[in-house]
Amino acid sequence: MKLYDGGRAPNPRRVRIFLAEKGLSVPLEQVDIGKFEHKTAEFTAKNPMQGIPVLELDDGTLISESVAICRYFEELHPAPPLFGTGALERAAVEMWNRRLDLGLYSSIAAVFRHSHPAMAEREVPQVPDWAAANRDKVIHFLRILDAQLARHTFVTGETYTVADITALVAIDFMKLPRLTIPEDCSNIVRWHALVSSRASAVA
Amino acid sequence: MKLYDGGRAPNPRRVRIFLAEKGLSVPLEQVDIGKFEHKTAEFTAKNPMQGIPVLELDDGTLISESVAICRYFEELHPAPPLFGTGALERAAVEMWNRRLDLGLYSSIAAVFRHSHPAMAEREVPQVPDWAAANRDKVIHFLRILDAQLARHTFVTGETYTVADITALVAIDFMKLPRLTIPEDCSNIVRWHALVSSRASAVA
Repeated sequence: MKLYDGGRAPNPRRVRIFLAEKGLSVPLEQVDIGKFEHKTAEFTAKNPMQGIPVLELDDGTLISESVAICRYFEELHPAPPLFGTGALERAAVEMWNRRLDLGLYSSIAAVFRHSHPAMAEREVPQVPDWAAANRDKVIHFLRILDAQLARHTFVTGETYTVADITALVAIDFMKLPRLTIPEDCSNIVRWHALVSSRASAVA
Repeated sequence: MKLYDGGRAPNPRRVRIFLAEKGLSVPLEQVDIGKFEHKTAEFTAKNPMQGIPVLELDDGTLISESVAICRYFEELHPAPPLFGTGALERAAVEMWNRRLDLGLYSSIAAVFRHSHPAMAEREVPQVPDWAAANRDKVIHFLRILDAQLARHTFVTGETYTVADITALVAIDFMKLPRLTIPEDCSNIVRWHALVSSRASAVA
């Protein structure tokens, strides 16, 4: 198998961190977004959404969407469990992973795509008012996350899960559109230092 | 347990269809979005995202996010499997469910929330340019979905899964912002008639 990766882009990092936490190594092939390699006909045939990462198996089967790739590896290599153990924990991981994806990651991406000059020829049309609206959504969500991290070591409880990976990658992605963690969110700051200190964080 | 439900809103319908496919019945408690009951302090304590549905267990445990609630019931009642069987099928269901959520459902919701007069006091600020941009995104995604349904009976293959539920609810949700399936998407029309004819569709 091989993983179509994309250097500094946030979604490929989610899968690299996940693999590092599992102790797995997969051959990487770089897709240069800067050169629009993800928009070629050849790559679009692999993923019609034109996104990275994409996992290609030896028989040619293609899996895209970061969380789907992570879930595939979770099924093949259940230990350590990163999607939770048992019905209730798995539901909590799914709940927080979706809240983070839909309520934080998507909003940060919206600010970046709709306000950053570098994105002008990629996000057509750029909608500056949508970027502005999402700045507020990011801050609103961070306060919800901070309240959760006031009660728990990690996002879903006392165990590191894929939801921590989503949150870490999202929060590090905030740098690009110059978003910052509000000063009163001390629990996020505590948690961010903790998850950033794991060996997987540099993957 | 009880499920906080919301009448005609699309997300609660996802869970109701899922439960009907499983042959399960859960007591429902209506939350009237029209009266902003999902924004009360009492309900916000149950789900800080102020969304429905929410599942409350007898011990007070709360699960929100439609897909998380569905996954909880999948764990408790694995048959019939609606999230796939085996690593590869589960990855495909996750992949399509996310594509549908992020590439279709979210875009339809954006058109509705940012263009419909009824949403003016709920989506603040409404960004009409964002609604317009998403009309194009919806049509673009429907062509990708149509190509998939040209090759398969259901969204992820020959078996009905939670991805079909997400697609059905999303496409039915298109009526509100007056979006229509392009005439050349005949495979979606064929599939839509098929999944709408299941007993679960009226749930």
